[in-house]
Amino acid sequence: MLDVQSFAAGQWLPSGAGARNIASAITGDVIAQAGNDALDVQAMLGHAREVGGPALRKLTFHDRAKMLKAVALYLMERKQALYELSYDTGATLSDHKIDIDGGIGTMMVFASKGRREMPDAHVYLDGPPEQLGRAGDFMGRHICTPLQGVAVHINAFNFPVWGMLEKLAPTLLAGVPAIVKPATATSYVTEACVRMMLESGLLPKGALQLVSGGLGDMLDHLECQDAVAFTGSADTALMLRSNPKLMQHSVRFASEQDSLNASVLGPDAVAGTPEFDLFVKEVQREMTAKAGQKCTAIRRIMVPEAQVDAVIAALGERLAKTTIGDPRAEATRMGALVSAGQKRDVLEKAALIGAEAERVFGNPDDFTVAGADKDKGAFVPPMLFHCADPDAAQRVHDTEAFGPVSTIMPYRDLPHAIDLLNKGKGSLVASIITNDGDVAREVTMGSAAFHGRLYFNNRTSMSEATGHGAPLPHMVHGGPGRAGGGEELGGIRGVMHYMQRTAIQGSPDILTSIGKQWVPGGTEITDQAHPFTRTFNQIKLGETFNSPSREITLEDIETFAHFTGDTFYAHMDEDAAKANPFFPGRVAHGYLLLSFAAGLFVQPDPGPVLANTGLDNLRFMAPVAAGDSIRVRLSVKHKTPRNEEYGEVRWHVTLYNQNDEVAAEYELLTMNAY
Amino acid sequence: MLDVQSFAAGQWLPSGAGARNIASAITGDVIAQAGNDALDVQAMLGHAREVGGPALRKLTFHDRAKMLKAVALYLMERKQALYELSYDTGATLSDHKIDIDGGIGTMMVFASKGRREMPDAHVYLDGPPEQLGRAGDFMGRHICTPLQGVAVHINAFNFPVWGMLEKLAPTLLAGVPAIVKPATATSYVTEACVRMMLESGLLPKGALQLVSGGLGDMLDHLECQDAVAFTGSADTALMLRSNPKLMQHSVRFASEQDSLNASVLGPDAVAGTPEFDLFVKEVQREMTAKAGQKCTAIRRIMVPEAQVDAVIAALGERLAKTTIGDPRAEATRMGALVSAGQKRDVLEKAALIGAEAERVFGNPDDFTVAGADKDKGAFVPPMLFHCADPDAAQRVHDTEAFGPVSTIMPYRDLPHAIDLLNKGKGSLVASIITNDGDVAREVTMGSAAFHGRLYFNNRTSMSEATGHGAPLPHMVHGGPGRAGGGEELGGIRGVMHYMQRTAIQGSPDILTSIGKQWVPGGTEITDQAHPFTRTFNQIKLGETFNSPSREITLEDIETFAHFTGDTFYAHMDEDAAKANPFFPGRVAHGYLLLSFAAGLFVQPDPGPVLANTGLDNLRFMAPVAAGDSIRVRLSVKHKTPRNEEYGEVRWHVTLYNQNDEVAAEYELLTMNAY
Repeated sequence: MLDVQSFAAGQWLPSGAGARNIASAITGDVIAQAGNDALDVQAMLGHAREVGGPALRKLTFHDRAKMLKAVALYLMERKQALYELSYDTGATLSDHKIDIDGGIGTMMVFASKGRREMPDAHVYLDGPPEQLGRAGDFMGRHICTPLQGVAVHINAFNFPVWGMLEKLAPTLLAGVPAIVKPATATSYVTEACVRMMLESGLLPKGALQLVSGGLGDMLDHLECQDAVAFTGSADTALMLRSNPKLMQHSVRFASEQDSLNASVLGPDAVAGTPEFDLFVKEVQREMTAKAGQKCTAIRRIMVPEAQVDAVIAALGERLAKTTIGDPRAEATRMGALVSAGQKRDVLEKAALIGAEAERVFGNPDDFTVAGADKDKGAFVPPMLFHCADPDAAQRVHDTEAFGPVSTIMPYRDLPHAIDLLNKGKGSLVASIITNDGDVAREVTMGSAAFHGRLYFNNRTSMSEATGHGAPLPHMVHGGPGRAGGGEELGGIRGVMHYMQRTAIQGSPDILTSIGKQWVPGGTEITDQAHPFTRTFNQIKLGETFNSPSREITLEDIETFAHFTGDTFYAHMDEDAAKANPFFPGRVAHGYLLLSFAAGLFVQPDPGPVLANTGLDNLRFMAPVAAGDSIRVRLSVKHKTPRNEEYGEVRWHVTLYNQNDEVAAEYELLTMNAY
Repeated sequence: MLDVQSFAAGQWLPSGAGARNIASAITGDVIAQAGNDALDVQAMLGHAREVGGPALRKLTFHDRAKMLKAVALYLMERKQALYELSYDTGATLSDHKIDIDGGIGTMMVFASKGRREMPDAHVYLDGPPEQLGRAGDFMGRHICTPLQGVAVHINAFNFPVWGMLEKLAPTLLAGVPAIVKPATATSYVTEACVRMMLESGLLPKGALQLVSGGLGDMLDHLECQDAVAFTGSADTALMLRSNPKLMQHSVRFASEQDSLNASVLGPDAVAGTPEFDLFVKEVQREMTAKAGQKCTAIRRIMVPEAQVDAVIAALGERLAKTTIGDPRAEATRMGALVSAGQKRDVLEKAALIGAEAERVFGNPDDFTVAGADKDKGAFVPPMLFHCADPDAAQRVHDTEAFGPVSTIMPYRDLPHAIDLLNKGKGSLVASIITNDGDVAREVTMGSAAFHGRLYFNNRTSMSEATGHGAPLPHMVHGGPGRAGGGEELGGIRGVMHYMQRTAIQGSPDILTSIGKQWVPGGTEITDQAHPFTRTFNQIKLGETFNSPSREITLEDIETFAHFTGDTFYAHMDEDAAKANPFFPGRVAHGYLLLSFAAGLFVQPDPGPVLANTGLDNLRFMAPVAAGDSIRVRLSVKHKTPRNEEYGEVRWHVTLYNQNDEVAAEYELLTMNAY
């Protein structure tokens, strides 16, 4: 029998005397026990706050991203062991791919985004500087720094690996230690995964702790730098978020709750269209994957009145082919619910729905289970209900049977479908299968505010679409109202949940010093060699090159026009140019200015600058006419290491005319050798 | 006597039988009564949700921004009337400028940001599209749409105008109706301002309602599309946020609470430096503005041990010059607290602080009031305490006397100062007066996570700095922990609190249809005339121009190099170029490619395209060598009206080589006549 232990303040603790037994979802045999006896909650919090946090905060975002990647690769090599354990939760091989591969993949995406979208530094900059005074001596900007407390993650039973890693990856990337408390029913899988991560030696001490069994009074000891992220039922969420200590200290509490997610068959997607078939396939898959134990599963199926019969028939046909049984068997398409208790709950909820809707597929008292004992395992068949009057019904909009149970309901027109969608009072995701952009837009305008995610699919996207039910690390996961009001994932957005956004105000030099990004108006360092002759490591923020000036002649403009083919009248015809609201007469091409500017600052010989790789935020501010002169100022704004050989330097470039007016401003990107 | 009325469901309702009397802060005479008798809470909510919301949501962000600007201008013309009323709250003319001009100015900034930073559309795009499949047929992005409910704003007494407008501006810009509940003590000023806004006729019906007196059971009827924003005391916040209905429906609750804000004199800012004088001036101003009744006021003054005596002396000298009295008198520097009750509370809290700290300036039993009756008005003197052992003390870190009361405390070194800062357990703002960037960075790394705002000031920024206590519309206002955990303002960030962020996934065309921004991979419309010949109004998202191709010759590269002066070796020297990790040999200049590209798509004759005004996100993806050919694809990505004559068109531009590989990608901005 597996002993699911806690990892507390650097020690593994056995489950102890009061441990709870965990039965296999397939055989009903007790296979593990979980719990804790002598959990020292304060020691765990202290360990995270005083050991884990400081160690993580010493690392940069890039360091932590590399760490995540290494952990993900370490787990990837060991995923088979997690698969083997996970069959006993009732999950099939394709369920494991969602949970285990999906969790590891999520970690990989955060590792990659951390490297690409965050700086190799300790402070994340949120948006550009704001000039708060006329002269630019007082500026503002927003930064994000890691919370100095601990993140407590309370996870649901259905995804013992993904559920942990989708919270852990952004938390660790933010620089915050975590205490993970998995749901007991599948905690043996989570524990195995935690052991792997700890054994890898890749995480700093104190970065990750695990609670087997209950949290005790841990929440009562949380403070303003801590955060709680919960996934599970609305009832538990309400109990947790009502904790007076959490409210007193404004402890962040993010909740991800089961919701009445819906899928809408577009009015255009009638039987015979690719979208109709796609809809049936997607609904069947969502009903049966993880035996319907997904917080994003489709609980309400909305179809145009005229399509109801066709959908019931087509869906029934597909559901009938869903082989239920031993998840280890290759032919099995749907395994068991996680436990006998869960099965009881699903059947009770299905009965509530049954009071308002007719069951048109699946009979819990009469179905076949292959390769397992139907009475010992927590098996249920897929059950499809039909609610003919969804306006009068209530239960179908607020009762979630957390299993392969869904209700089909007719809608009259798109406003009616929107009305039904919104009756869920907040969901994680709604899907609309349509090939009509206007339908997509109308549903969005009417219903987006009720959902954390809207998933559209059709003949164009179907070959690549990732599924109604799949939260992706790139996209926000969470939803308003019944879904808990929380938000997770969404790329770097998800990292921000574990950081504090702080407005900072001060002189440009102060902001430069804090953000490690040179702020215009800050000190210009001009006592060095031309910055293009200095390596990535040598060069400092604010190093500035002031070019000599160059006059632009009419001949230059003519030459450029005929050479490039850009004979736009503003460059060629004095009268026509004058009639244009932007120009005083014939002016130089913007690209001529950029090109001449490069001529003014480039260092011709091989040196540390390897290439100009890009340009951002170019704005032409004042026209330059023949006879005007230009000069360029170029300052080092930001540095980002990119690989073993070179890093990216971002330059702030200002083009002045002979009157020191700004003719253009932009940011230049170069790759510089170390 | 003023009757402070409610504006409910389109009707003004008198304060009724149970109304509460409001006394002048100066004379103690009753000047107004506030309350409500027969407030139909459900009707108010229904009016906002069913009338106000739909009307606001019909408008675009630009429409609503223009509306805000008009309202702000309307109020600006009438501000004198608000000043007159406001003297009785105890506020001086310079206090009115913070409250009334500050509130109107906040509205102006939101109006301006709405036009510049949001689209002229109904959906706000949050971040770029994410490619979720290999071929780009399935994409994701994030959008924000207005909540479909109502925002309930519960405001504090200290800023009857700013407190309303700083919440109202982002709410209306988001497209959400508001119900404003001012604190009773100063509600007559708020009511007058609401009357003005309603009389202006500029707001749609149902967009703005007002509650005089209590909210009744309004919060019990809020749902998942509603939001509550509260400013005030921690006790009231806790009571409100504990409302079970709010928690059950995950109603957004943002709280802005009084906190123990601190100001730190940097170790470098010794007596004799400009920073020392600045510090004393700033502390004195923050203690006495609004008679210290500011949620951002400095409650804790942290100075290096060696500077304590000098600061006490200098501060005492300035405080002694603070004339207290009738706020209508020009010589008055500090008016009264808002009420006798408030005075009692301040004196009680000061006594608590006095148990841990010695009062070194100000005696509430012995001070002078000019031009008013000291016993009838709610006057108190500025009081400065000195806490010699702030590590042992507790009250000075958790007791806020909401008046001109502050405690000075010594720190040994910067880590000690950070430790003291963080003992506030979350604040709205901390300031650090320093001319040392390293001090700024160290405090930020150690303490930013405990504050919503960090304000740095020194000799460079002092002439433009806006003050420790001034929340600016551009910068986030709010803070963790004791400060309530909420966030307001911060530019467009503040608008997002009244919108739902939704992840959308689908084909490029579906995303284009929803976001009104063409997504690469979406349909390219090529059956029209050259898009540069079509006006802003004619042109459609996705209209695409495919240019002919042009060969790049070695002569072109040579010509361009010598013409522009850009003789970088990668263009000039085959062997040197080959040694560079980015190039296969001599390659064309990036600016040559851009210039030739323009030559390939420009229309020489006068037409709707007036000017190329900028360029964004240029990335060079593959080098182009002599003998290669390039061609350009140019698609309409986004349209934004800019003034009465023209609007901005954003083009997605791709430069291909002869093998259809992408050589460069960028976005081009043009101004196009309507």
